[in-house]
Amino acid sequence: MTMCQTLNTLFSPRSIAILGASNTAGKSGAVPIALLLEAGYAGKIYPVNPRQDTVYGIPCHASLGDIEDAIDLVIIAIPASHVLAALEKSRPGQISNAVIFTSGFAEVGDVGLQLQQQLQAFARKRHIRLLGPNCLGFINIRKNTYATFSPAPFNGRLPAGHVGMVTQSGAFGAYAYCLARERHLGLSFWISTGNESDLDVADCIQWLVDDPDTKVIMAYIEGCKDGDKLKRALWAANRAGKPVVVTKIGRTNSGARAAASHTAALAGDDVVYDALFKQYGVIRAYTIDEFFNVGQALSKWPDRPAKNQNLAIISISGGVGALMADEADENRLNLPAPPEAVKTRLLARIPFAGANNPVDVTGHALTDLSILLDTSRDMLGTGNYGALAIFLAAAGSSETLWPYLQELVDVLHTEHPHIPLAISALLAPERKNTLQKNGAMVFVDPSVAIRTLSRIMHHRPAIIPVQNNEQPHVSLPEGTGALNEADSLSMLKKAGIPVTPFAVAKSAFEAQEVASQWRGSVAMKIVSADILHKSDVGGVKLGIDGEQAVSDAYDDILQSVRSNMPQVAIDGVLVAPMRSGGIECIMGVHRDPIFGPVVMFGLGGIFVEILKDVSFRLAPFDREEALLMIHEIRATALLFGTRGQGPADISALADTLVALSRLAYEKRDQIESIDINPILALPEGQGVLALDGLIIRNRIT
Amino acid sequence: MTMCQTLNTLFSPRSIAILGASNTAGKSGAVPIALLLEAGYAGKIYPVNPRQDTVYGIPCHASLGDIEDAIDLVIIAIPASHVLAALEKSRPGQISNAVIFTSGFAEVGDVGLQLQQQLQAFARKRHIRLLGPNCLGFINIRKNTYATFSPAPFNGRLPAGHVGMVTQSGAFGAYAYCLARERHLGLSFWISTGNESDLDVADCIQWLVDDPDTKVIMAYIEGCKDGDKLKRALWAANRAGKPVVVTKIGRTNSGARAAASHTAALAGDDVVYDALFKQYGVIRAYTIDEFFNVGQALSKWPDRPAKNQNLAIISISGGVGALMADEADENRLNLPAPPEAVKTRLLARIPFAGANNPVDVTGHALTDLSILLDTSRDMLGTGNYGALAIFLAAAGSSETLWPYLQELVDVLHTEHPHIPLAISALLAPERKNTLQKNGAMVFVDPSVAIRTLSRIMHHRPAIIPVQNNEQPHVSLPEGTGALNEADSLSMLKKAGIPVTPFAVAKSAFEAQEVASQWRGSVAMKIVSADILHKSDVGGVKLGIDGEQAVSDAYDDILQSVRSNMPQVAIDGVLVAPMRSGGIECIMGVHRDPIFGPVVMFGLGGIFVEILKDVSFRLAPFDREEALLMIHEIRATALLFGTRGQGPADISALADTLVALSRLAYEKRDQIESIDINPILALPEGQGVLALDGLIIRNRIT
Repeated sequence: MTMCQTLNTLFSPRSIAILGASNTAGKSGAVPIALLLEAGYAGKIYPVNPRQDTVYGIPCHASLGDIEDAIDLVIIAIPASHVLAALEKSRPGQISNAVIFTSGFAEVGDVGLQLQQQLQAFARKRHIRLLGPNCLGFINIRKNTYATFSPAPFNGRLPAGHVGMVTQSGAFGAYAYCLARERHLGLSFWISTGNESDLDVADCIQWLVDDPDTKVIMAYIEGCKDGDKLKRALWAANRAGKPVVVTKIGRTNSGARAAASHTAALAGDDVVYDALFKQYGVIRAYTIDEFFNVGQALSKWPDRPAKNQNLAIISISGGVGALMADEADENRLNLPAPPEAVKTRLLARIPFAGANNPVDVTGHALTDLSILLDTSRDMLGTGNYGALAIFLAAAGSSETLWPYLQELVDVLHTEHPHIPLAISALLAPERKNTLQKNGAMVFVDPSVAIRTLSRIMHHRPAIIPVQNNEQPHVSLPEGTGALNEADSLSMLKKAGIPVTPFAVAKSAFEAQEVASQWRGSVAMKIVSADILHKSDVGGVKLGIDGEQAVSDAYDDILQSVRSNMPQVAIDGVLVAPMRSGGIECIMGVHRDPIFGPVVMFGLGGIFVEILKDVSFRLAPFDREEALLMIHEIRATALLFGTRGQGPADISALADTLVALSRLAYEKRDQIESIDINPILALPEGQGVLALDGLIIRNRIT
Repeated sequence: MTMCQTLNTLFSPRSIAILGASNTAGKSGAVPIALLLEAGYAGKIYPVNPRQDTVYGIPCHASLGDIEDAIDLVIIAIPASHVLAALEKSRPGQISNAVIFTSGFAEVGDVGLQLQQQLQAFARKRHIRLLGPNCLGFINIRKNTYATFSPAPFNGRLPAGHVGMVTQSGAFGAYAYCLARERHLGLSFWISTGNESDLDVADCIQWLVDDPDTKVIMAYIEGCKDGDKLKRALWAANRAGKPVVVTKIGRTNSGARAAASHTAALAGDDVVYDALFKQYGVIRAYTIDEFFNVGQALSKWPDRPAKNQNLAIISISGGVGALMADEADENRLNLPAPPEAVKTRLLARIPFAGANNPVDVTGHALTDLSILLDTSRDMLGTGNYGALAIFLAAAGSSETLWPYLQELVDVLHTEHPHIPLAISALLAPERKNTLQKNGAMVFVDPSVAIRTLSRIMHHRPAIIPVQNNEQPHVSLPEGTGALNEADSLSMLKKAGIPVTPFAVAKSAFEAQEVASQWRGSVAMKIVSADILHKSDVGGVKLGIDGEQAVSDAYDDILQSVRSNMPQVAIDGVLVAPMRSGGIECIMGVHRDPIFGPVVMFGLGGIFVEILKDVSFRLAPFDREEALLMIHEIRATALLFGTRGQGPADISALADTLVALSRLAYEKRDQIESIDINPILALPEGQGVLALDGLIIRNRIT
């Protein structure tokens, strides 16, 4: 039985037993039965409760074992301490899946954790898949399967649609259900994962990827325990062409602290999640509104990537048009002007229109709405715009204009079904819904409209790193802890990272000999795996010029280090030519406990230390991703040339980041961290040069 | 007659004549009459139209002159070309004010501009104040005075309230009217200013400041022609304790271009508006939603400044609590934990609650909402929180919980009327309105709730610069154009700005003599008002050490400059001791055509040139404002000490910025610009030192 088949019996069960079935409306053992009956669930329902004869008119069983049939899904709504015993009364092979509403497990501490582990062990033995515990359950909208105790559906059911929603938080899930209803957003599945004792968000995303009715996935994430599984699910979503929108908590210090205390586990380093989302083609939404705006927009226009980032704006108010242009600019959208022919046609009808982009059709357009339609068609007809945003001010509430507004949306959607169309106007809820059904998004605030469009217009699917077989194979010296600088640099060089020429001298004489091979002055540094901060113990001398100076420097360094750190093993003194010019950069790798090796890039000195201006990506990645990483730092302009200085070798920087990411990935089980600081970005065409490097291996290999 | 009295007859007219009165529903000459009658306007209405006997049942006059009485307000709804002639038919002194709906004036080009100027001239002669032309008019809500042709009020009137709204854009104004109605936001006045041929936004703000019913002012601004008037109005609002919220278009390049093409005038430099808003205690809203959220929040809690920036968060979902903490952190709000006693009381009732801040009362709080009320009271009872945000997820739609929710808001508002309270939940519109009437703000998105609270919690009234009489009086040399470096530095020194010691040598010998008074090497620079880029013509030599070197440098400089620029007048060579250490900063002044002298601050080199990391303030300002300016640059951390370097003399930087701002303000009619680049910020306690300075006087004095 593959995982997929198993989840099919979970999410589309033909039979459901309810442990703790109740006749008392509102109880967690009553809600799902009432919802299933009300919705007309087509499978079998088996209430289980030794103290009841019938529940909601259906004959009750005293225990699972008393049910003759096999059960696809057991819903568990009894106290935590009774769950295992109740499940044990089933026959081996009788039960395929369980959804556990009950709280009082891992989330309440050690006693609960033990109960949860016992339950997990039993389920594993019996091949039962678990959703929860401490979750709100799930809903399969099309199959009327309400395996939830959230009362939200009693106030109105959701329409069936193509958005699959999965959330770790029950409270958020219930809210999301209500918000989706309010917005008439159709879902395929609504799933809450709770404590994730077995199935987690990644499993559910994978399920939604495989579900033919799901086209867009919305996920609310608090934390993740299995990074590889999540990566696989996100890859799968990319391959299937299903965009994923995620809201993840803990993006700031305060939020991360709150998240950690809530999930009773480290939520994980947010910058790493952020890198994951960028690389795996996930749109991250920062607020609940944005989560829904983007999810809903994607459900209308799921094609990725967008045609381009050119936005057409048409406004009946020049001022608000400018406000929309502000928002477009801040969200990196282009506003190319329409061709002259389009302008001329508009100006012939409204001489004082603003014919550039934003197009200001002025209030006159309200006396003849065909102007709006014609101008919109003219603009989109150029084929040059990736989306259209229209601002209608108060005109949305006009009775006379309403038929024209409907026509506008109908015609534009028919002619350009793949071009996102956002209308900003104040409309009565049913009118808003009509326009949204017919192919537009409707907003009150035109800035929110633009921001939403920008999120889907900038969205690109993931760049899948090519497995590069020509990559030099590197073998790391045995052992644990730091490699000394010389070994670190050699290793980096083998991995394809340009490093400064150097040699290790074991005596003052050797140092002189080595130094003499280069013109100009040299840098000299103590070589010892035990010394991480070489300067602090007098282990570094820079700009040493001349035989005697080199010899003296060698002696000074040894003496200073020996007197400061008498115990350490010294492997010699590294001698390298002094090198200046270029821009000092930093590259690094650290291992994230959830997602593995993470590569960092930044400019050196104050930019990293004081301004924390760095970017991150999960290893491995390709050139295109590396270039995005370089562009992402705030000070990126410095690399593209400053007054009196040409551009740095961006291309070589990108190649080096790729090489570093491959080294980090290949040796992910052995390498704890890598620091290359500084690495000089030389002028364009001259490459990069690592001047110092440090590789730290695992404490335990 | 003071301006204020005049505006009283405009905005509270006892009699209104309508030029172009019409019986055709929807026409601009019909709408105001229909609205006035429907609303029960208590004053007299005089329809004017030679082709009608009666309009809406009221006898019509053929012309203004045919009306026997004096008229407080004429509403003009006839074509542009007829306006002047129609007004001329009034008797001198008969008319006090006119609101001109008609378009076709300055906004359509030269012909219209001429018409508008003729109209202005006539109005000035007759002491008639004008609102418009090309405007939607105004509404005095309490007096039922509907001097507008916007049909928006037909769909429902606004409640009377304490928010005065003024907008330059008619379309925006109509939209804002509808949004206010949708939000049940009560207004005092709603005013649209259009072309501003006479009264502008600043006049209307001033009027609202003087209006006792207005407590909060919301202004939508596209541009401003009279900076001083706007400043005065904003001061007045500050003195009166009336917060002002502004949305201004054109904050980006695209937006500014769109705004310029819309208003047919430069919208003005947005960074200068931004400085104005910061200094004059104006809250700038970046979207229409934010404009209303902040305006509405201020209308409930107008007290400024806020008690503190400590926010209490209570959530029934730990995850969403963390999401709210993220938003609080990004908006620089603090989340101090409640005292132990408060935690203990909560944990006694819900053992698995999160008792820090955000407080996670968990879903259990929904089974007993008194937990929510008690915890809220406990938190606010500490006196330590400036605002409270509560997230209730889907609980808002529960019938059972609704009475408790009402009680929650009632009790908290009664006990803490000055503490902003934001509830995030999905509520039916009438319930939302009930809670908002009773003292809470209600949001769907908890992040928007936090952002709105942060805007009002961070708002501070303006810091009024003290007129400092001890300020040294500086007199600028007669003439126009640049001062040479020596004169510029002397001027800056007299104004209280620490400058490097220097002397001007007229010969190589003098240069030697001058240089000998300082130890170490010197900098030598050509002195000429005609040379702005001294280095480019070989006019600068740095680090010159020794008699011969100084003498040679003098000759080299003169020779190089003379060969490069044979025509220029040379005033000698400036000699100054070389100075290093400290952090290079830049200070500057430029004159904004609308708002006068603007002071800039930034760090030197790449920070200004490449990263554009600078802050601006209008001159003059005080220390507190200067400190804000220093903190505002992104790289401000560099001034507060870096690895191996203590903090710079921030205090001296602030004093110097204040001195520069006072110089710029005192000489605002003479000085075009000032550049001080670099000015060294020396280590704490050692002050600052300007190394180069350039003052440019007006082209025409």
